Amino acid sequence: MQKHVLRSLPGSGSIPTGAGKVVAPPLRAQGRTCRHTAAARIADQVQGALPVGPLAKHRHLKHNASRIVPSAATVDSSTVVKTKRIYTFGKSLSQGDASMKQLLGGKGANLAEMSRIGLSVPPGLTITTDTCADFHINGRKLPDGCWEEVLQGLRTVESEMGCNLGDAKAPLLLSVRSGAAVSMPGMMDTVLNLGLNDACAAGLAARAGDERFAYDAYRRFLDMYGDVVMGIPHHLFEDQLERLKEERRVTEDTALTAADLKVLVGRYKEVYKQLGKVFPEDPYEQLRLAIYAVFDSWQSERANVYRSVNGITGLTGTAVNVQAMAFGNMGLTSGTGVCFTRNPSTGERKLYGEYLINAQGEDVVAGIRTPEPIETLARTLPGAYQQLLDNCALLEKHYKDMQDIEFTVQEGKLFMLQCRSGKRTGTAAVRIAVELVDEGLVDPDTAIMMVEPGHLDQLLHPQFADEDAYKKDVVGKGLPASPGAAVGQAVFTAEDAEAWRSSGLPVVLVRRETSPEDVKGMYSAEGVLCQLGGMTSHAAVVARGWGKPCITGCPDLQVDEHNKLARINGAEIRQGDFISLNGSTGEIIRGKQPLAPPELAGDLNRFMKWVDERRRLGVLTNADTPEDAEEARKFGAEGIGLCRTEHMFFASEERIATVRRMIVAQTQEARLKALSDLLPFQREDFGGILRAMSGFPVTIRLLDPPLHEFLPDGEMTEVCEALARDAGITIDEVMGTIEKLQEVNPMLGFRGCRLGITYPEITEMQVRAMFEAAVGVLRDGGSVQLDIMVPLVGTAAELKNQEQLIRRIGEEVVKQSGVRVPYRVGTMIEVPRAALQAGAIAKTAEFFSFGTNDLTQMTFGYSRDDIGKFLQNYLDKGILQYDPFQVLDQDGVGELIKFAVERGRASRPNLKIGICGEQGGEPKTVAFLHEVGLDYVSCSPFRVPIARLAAAQAAVRSAKAAAKKK
Amino acid sequence: MQKHVLRSLPGSGSIPTGAGKVVAPPLRAQGRTCRHTAAARIADQVQGALPVGPLAKHRHLKHNASRIVPSAATVDSSTVVKTKRIYTFGKSLSQGDASMKQLLGGKGANLAEMSRIGLSVPPGLTITTDTCADFHINGRKLPDGCWEEVLQGLRTVESEMGCNLGDAKAPLLLSVRSGAAVSMPGMMDTVLNLGLNDACAAGLAARAGDERFAYDAYRRFLDMYGDVVMGIPHHLFEDQLERLKEERRVTEDTALTAADLKVLVGRYKEVYKQLGKVFPEDPYEQLRLAIYAVFDSWQSERANVYRSVNGITGLTGTAVNVQAMAFGNMGLTSGTGVCFTRNPSTGERKLYGEYLINAQGEDVVAGIRTPEPIETLARTLPGAYQQLLDNCALLEKHYKDMQDIEFTVQEGKLFMLQCRSGKRTGTAAVRIAVELVDEGLVDPDTAIMMVEPGHLDQLLHPQFADEDAYKKDVVGKGLPASPGAAVGQAVFTAEDAEAWRSSGLPVVLVRRETSPEDVKGMYSAEGVLCQLGGMTSHAAVVARGWGKPCITGCPDLQVDEHNKLARINGAEIRQGDFISLNGSTGEIIRGKQPLAPPELAGDLNRFMKWVDERRRLGVLTNADTPEDAEEARKFGAEGIGLCRTEHMFFASEERIATVRRMIVAQTQEARLKALSDLLPFQREDFGGILRAMSGFPVTIRLLDPPLHEFLPDGEMTEVCEALARDAGITIDEVMGTIEKLQEVNPMLGFRGCRLGITYPEITEMQVRAMFEAAVGVLRDGGSVQLDIMVPLVGTAAELKNQEQLIRRIGEEVVKQSGVRVPYRVGTMIEVPRAALQAGAIAKTAEFFSFGTNDLTQMTFGYSRDDIGKFLQNYLDKGILQYDPFQVLDQDGVGELIKFAVERGRASRPNLKIGICGEQGGEPKTVAFLHEVGLDYVSCSPFRVPIARLAAAQAAVRSAKAAAKKK
Repeated sequence: MQKHVLRSLPGSGSIPTGAGKVVAPPLRAQGRTCRHTAAARIADQVQGALPVGPLAKHRHLKHNASRIVPSAATVDSSTVVKTKRIYTFGKSLSQGDASMKQLLGGKGANLAEMSRIGLSVPPGLTITTDTCADFHINGRKLPDGCWEEVLQGLRTVESEMGCNLGDAKAPLLLSVRSGAAVSMPGMMDTVLNLGLNDACAAGLAARAGDERFAYDAYRRFLDMYGDVVMGIPHHLFEDQLERLKEERRVTEDTALTAADLKVLVGRYKEVYKQLGKVFPEDPYEQLRLAIYAVFDSWQSERANVYRSVNGITGLTGTAVNVQAMAFGNMGLTSGTGVCFTRNPSTGERKLYGEYLINAQGEDVVAGIRTPEPIETLARTLPGAYQQLLDNCALLEKHYKDMQDIEFTVQEGKLFMLQCRSGKRTGTAAVRIAVELVDEGLVDPDTAIMMVEPGHLDQLLHPQFADEDAYKKDVVGKGLPASPGAAVGQAVFTAEDAEAWRSSGLPVVLVRRETSPEDVKGMYSAEGVLCQLGGMTSHAAVVARGWGKPCITGCPDLQVDEHNKLARINGAEIRQGDFISLNGSTGEIIRGKQPLAPPELAGDLNRFMKWVDERRRLGVLTNADTPEDAEEARKFGAEGIGLCRTEHMFFASEERIATVRRMIVAQTQEARLKALSDLLPFQREDFGGILRAMSGFPVTIRLLDPPLHEFLPDGEMTEVCEALARDAGITIDEVMGTIEKLQEVNPMLGFRGCRLGITYPEITEMQVRAMFEAAVGVLRDGGSVQLDIMVPLVGTAAELKNQEQLIRRIGEEVVKQSGVRVPYRVGTMIEVPRAALQAGAIAKTAEFFSFGTNDLTQMTFGYSRDDIGKFLQNYLDKGILQYDPFQVLDQDGVGELIKFAVERGRASRPNLKIGICGEQGGEPKTVAFLHEVGLDYVSCSPFRVPIARLAAAQAAVRSAKAAAKKK
Repeated sequence: MQKHVLRSLPGSGSIPTGAGKVVAPPLRAQGRTCRHTAAARIADQVQGALPVGPLAKHRHLKHNASRIVPSAATVDSSTVVKTKRIYTFGKSLSQGDASMKQLLGGKGANLAEMSRIGLSVPPGLTITTDTCADFHINGRKLPDGCWEEVLQGLRTVESEMGCNLGDAKAPLLLSVRSGAAVSMPGMMDTVLNLGLNDACAAGLAARAGDERFAYDAYRRFLDMYGDVVMGIPHHLFEDQLERLKEERRVTEDTALTAADLKVLVGRYKEVYKQLGKVFPEDPYEQLRLAIYAVFDSWQSERANVYRSVNGITGLTGTAVNVQAMAFGNMGLTSGTGVCFTRNPSTGERKLYGEYLINAQGEDVVAGIRTPEPIETLARTLPGAYQQLLDNCALLEKHYKDMQDIEFTVQEGKLFMLQCRSGKRTGTAAVRIAVELVDEGLVDPDTAIMMVEPGHLDQLLHPQFADEDAYKKDVVGKGLPASPGAAVGQAVFTAEDAEAWRSSGLPVVLVRRETSPEDVKGMYSAEGVLCQLGGMTSHAAVVARGWGKPCITGCPDLQVDEHNKLARINGAEIRQGDFISLNGSTGEIIRGKQPLAPPELAGDLNRFMKWVDERRRLGVLTNADTPEDAEEARKFGAEGIGLCRTEHMFFASEERIATVRRMIVAQTQEARLKALSDLLPFQREDFGGILRAMSGFPVTIRLLDPPLHEFLPDGEMTEVCEALARDAGITIDEVMGTIEKLQEVNPMLGFRGCRLGITYPEITEMQVRAMFEAAVGVLRDGGSVQLDIMVPLVGTAAELKNQEQLIRRIGEEVVKQSGVRVPYRVGTMIEVPRAALQAGAIAKTAEFFSFGTNDLTQMTFGYSRDDIGKFLQNYLDKGILQYDPFQVLDQDGVGELIKFAVERGRASRPNLKIGICGEQGGEPKTVAFLHEVGLDYVSCSPFRVPIARLAAAQAAVRSAKAAAKKK
């Protein structure tokens, strides 16, 4: 592993590079797309070109003396409007810096900054975003004087590079790319190797002593330029390439000779002609048209829609970056490499990377050569290596973070192509943050911001020992519903899972979907795999609650529970077959893949102490059993924000049988009998939970799910018959109840407080069990804060109804026992109407807890069980930015939350407000809820550390923003 | 029929009365509960008592010199606080009037008003509502001087009646009742015959010459007083009565003799003693405690909860009305009667009622005597009759409306006991309103307010000829889902309905529930009866759209579609049995009940002209076929607010087969083929609709329901096989699609614009069909305004996606045809998030239409298919005031509507806004939407006239309120 170069992740911008071989890194949490993406990026680039001599003309200048609209940032005086449009960067002079994103775009500002602090960056120039605006105002014409400024800037670049645009002997090659202040789709793709024509290509071949390379670069340029600038479909060039390969009877591009490529260049030019286009042989014309194309792309439909949909306003246009190309394949004194200033896996403070002598990207893509450790550079070019070390130190000091660096050495001269904060594992993130504090580079506030909340997730779940090793065994992919790695033998029913587990066999439970009846089986399994369901389906929610890996929504999987087998992409999984699940990536893997235990870095405790000192939001947990509650305490939970009483109903055969008797009761007497049988179970569980959370609030929700969830399927004849016998009624009565309770839309049906209002005896039993449990704990010297939560309230009257019942029963128990129980009555806010009516509801409620799963379902009209049918399409089309069940929708659901907070506090200023929906542990959501003024978030135990960190980050951000205002 | 007395409906307040026989009236729309309620009211009262001579003392005065809190309304000066607490009414002096509801309560103000305008009302006094407040502030004590004022008022009453409270020779008997400004549950029931004790009962017996009557009155008083004032459960008295009847071996109360009743009086007093209560023999103490009880009832839990739930604030307390009793059974010069000042069935201007000589209510309840026409009074007591006529004239002039009157003649002296606006049929309502305008009593604005919108509904549906006649054949009751009367032979499948109908047989379709597949069968039926579903279930919505009677949600009905029979409350309905449905009451009736055609009064057109001149809201209709559209035009619809394209899909076997091929298509090619087959059907329908509505806007909604609604049930093997053959795919592929499209919560699933975004080709086909249809109509010289509506939008991006598609296709058709089609693109606002995001959405939308069915479902979290499980319970408990799918929820859903209107208009000032949900034709909802500023409402054709009237009433109310402000 040491040999491989660690590369950054997709999504980053790229800078022209002759970068070396890029290999999938050993970063566990990010391994899945690295190879692919890095390779794709390299494939877009052309490497190996020679700097060539000066020669420049500008014949194609067609200025328009139209009005120049002054930009605020660049107005010099009120009378003489002199607008600076070009900012150069490079060794000699960097005119911009990192603060000028608005004017230079993100890329331009970053290139300027790197040059400014003394790094050797290939020189270039940036045309300002304001110029783009003026270009469009002028009717697609460059403003007066702009082109001259470009040429002036170009001269600086040429002099630094020692070669000139269009000079056949020493041609300067350029990259041209767009770069707005905010990156967005629809903008123009990069054009590399601009400056080539027949003459320059020949010159390049001569200089490089490699004709094949020169014509490969040329034909790639023709393709890219035709596609990106001239609007010629890429596939037309591709067709020519394929035809030629057929003619030459070769299958690989690399098998084409220099002569072949020359032929191809001719045919590519034919493509231009056939479409009535003229390839501009003049490099200045090439440049001018490329600049036009960048500006045009700002107004492309896709970019316009994206800005409109995402509410991106205040941007004037895109900048254009024109930069000299640098090449690492100029002989043994050239090369290319990537490195991290610290080890991104462990966080160790030591340069970490690899280097490839005389290399070009194509070698990497073709897998021809293997990169060597970075030490090779020290050996072969100690001067360049020392310069690299100096640059790394400079960069860490400047950016105050571990850096991911791309560089090229061209004939002994080091060019820094890219630097950015390096991606890292959770372990490394915590170690680096803590050590940077110790090194005096950052303070704890900053350190807290350097660890992504998701990093902590990695620290807390078991992982696969080697994510690269298993790739060949991946048989399919589903939604990564609950992170971590699981390995076990496939079983297809909850009963089998329990049975195998009790024989000591590790199992993975494979189901079409899960229901509450499967819960015990799920608990027995190492991981759960479901054909159906989304990220917040029953299986996903339950599994995440336990920190158990789970994959759901796998369209290629067909589970045949009857025959105890599953098929996926042609493979078959039979009962007893070992399979492995990567819940972090959604990969389903054949066989028994080796696991590594969670790495709990020694710095973590120190880090979390800083975190807890800074956060304002309380972090509670969702837990349904005493075991869950104890687990959550270990993760730092400060109470229970949601205890779902019904989850206890499935804990044993006896319990579920009693629940079913209660539901099918034909008389109130029979129902009361069943309820009184249930009471001891509930009291026992509540007691255990209150004990585990002694000293912290415990929020218990009254029965919530529709009753049919507890009944057997009508087709389960034996179970129905047993139930009839057990309840002393006829099988017809059982079937009648099952039928009567069926619902068209159970999510919007007979559930929540609608149950407790219709059957007050159910609420009575539950409340009695809570109070009796509390009395028991108090008598044993424990400390209790009992918060009783009424679910699915939509009107103030509903809550009032249940509140009176709760207080009546509570006072009864208190009177009988003589023990005072501290308790509050509150409600879920999970129906849109409840958020609107929060003022009236808070007259009765002592606390609110946002149930954002249901609130999201109802605000959007999305059933979380059915969203799989269109979610991916919506995300692909940019209609949704995130799955709203994962990341709280701030515009819609968030506005309802704001209403509820405002209106609730207006009628009860000391109202306690929290959230217990799935999003409660999601960092962006936590930040939003901090801003909105919630008192706490509650999430599944494994998410508690994540929420703590997110809450601290939100607090630090707020404090900084507040300090700024002053 | 002429012989029967027409009585008012339940829900009205009642005044002490010795009223005559009360019989269920022939008013069709209100017949169902009349007999029961009127009888119940009479049973609460005791009749036949003699006025007796003066004698009064006030020994039990126990004043408290505590602070009297002055009430704003009654403060005389800032130094001397003198509060008037008692207002008398009667012949001599009526101190209050109708405007003083706040202080005297509704009942007290009304009694005062009647006296004031010169009607002979039994005298009495009202204790103010402020006194109630002071009573509670004082710690349940009457304020200083209050009791003296009561006694002073009582003296006025005694002098007018010529008898005195507690005077054994001529005892004054009183009624005591509560009466707040707003009527509410939980307030004290009436106490009648207060003033009786052993001595007075004996005196009463002597004076009346009827010992049995006196002791019957006495024992009833003991029961009522014990129950209402002393808190003794009524059943304890009832037990004694039953015991005595057993001892005497009689079954009827009337069989008990005077001696028996004397015994009963003794035993009732024993009941008091056994509970440690003392019956106050002193009539003054009786009165004082009764007043206390009224005041206490103001603070009863039930009343408090009611006020809190209904947001009733600003009331200080309840008033107490103390009034002399009057009796009609004092011999041949006494009697009792009820009458209407005009005929409530036809509206004819002629006194209409009945009279019973020497009558007491018990005769009526026991059915011993039959009342005679009102002319009897003219014959026997011409003076009293003339006075009655004069009173009627006076009342009509005073109240400017037809009046419902109760009166008693006591020894030749006429007492008016009650007068109020009389209930009437729709026919009468319109005639009376129009004639009152002609008589100069009211102006058209007022006339408009006199007809209830629901009245028009009666005018437009067929009715049963005699609702009394069929009562014995009623076998059960469901929800009155679509009004009107239907008679036909029972069939149990849609196919049978079509087949029988095409053989000329009238059928009633009986189903467990209906699905879109049943639509053609429903159309063939006279009426529809469903075991399941609510007032807005599929069956209800479709039926109302056609004005076809429908009953849903009938828990006692078990439909066995397989065996083609149904059972209800022991009765069996077999295929071919005649049944009748009263869709206005929900009654299911055995046999073929005779029908009467709808009565279209001649005054209706004139009336509707006034209506249309006044309303601001447009009234459009929901119509899915050219036939519906034409029907709706007749009812005055000004366009189509909702055309559900998918309803056309079921119009023929060929269409649904094509739709299914489109859904199960395994390739895009196959789907495009099916879509192109569908296009001509849609174009034809759209053309028909546009033609029928030429000159008016036609709003067509893109495909909305989940696709599985169009597929056969997976168990319908033959249909599935046919589909596979038809589509050229395997049966497994068909079953696979059916399974894949199944949803847990279809209402929140893959539907609405989610379909059109995922399968743009569906939207394309529909839009093309619309434009091509429009081009055809325009070419034929028609006028078109095509409004294309995107359903279920929740984000601006969704609408943008579909809008671009619509405009692209639209422009294509326009270009091809050379015909310009005026069109707009808009959206349903039916997802809560859309209401919140209305500002962003209106950037694209040219119109909004509130889909309040879905909006209500999602705002409350109520599935309209499943609400039946708890709705009735919620209505009973006062948690909901109305079914929110019937009457728009103004607090929750209404607030979202207000947001959307504000935000939508802020970003597009000329945004057209309407509603097309079920509530769009409901009068209270229409009034609200007028206030909120909508441009139009759209409802099913039969509701159009109702909506027109409701809109006019809202406009008149607004204008009046505005005039008041000036």
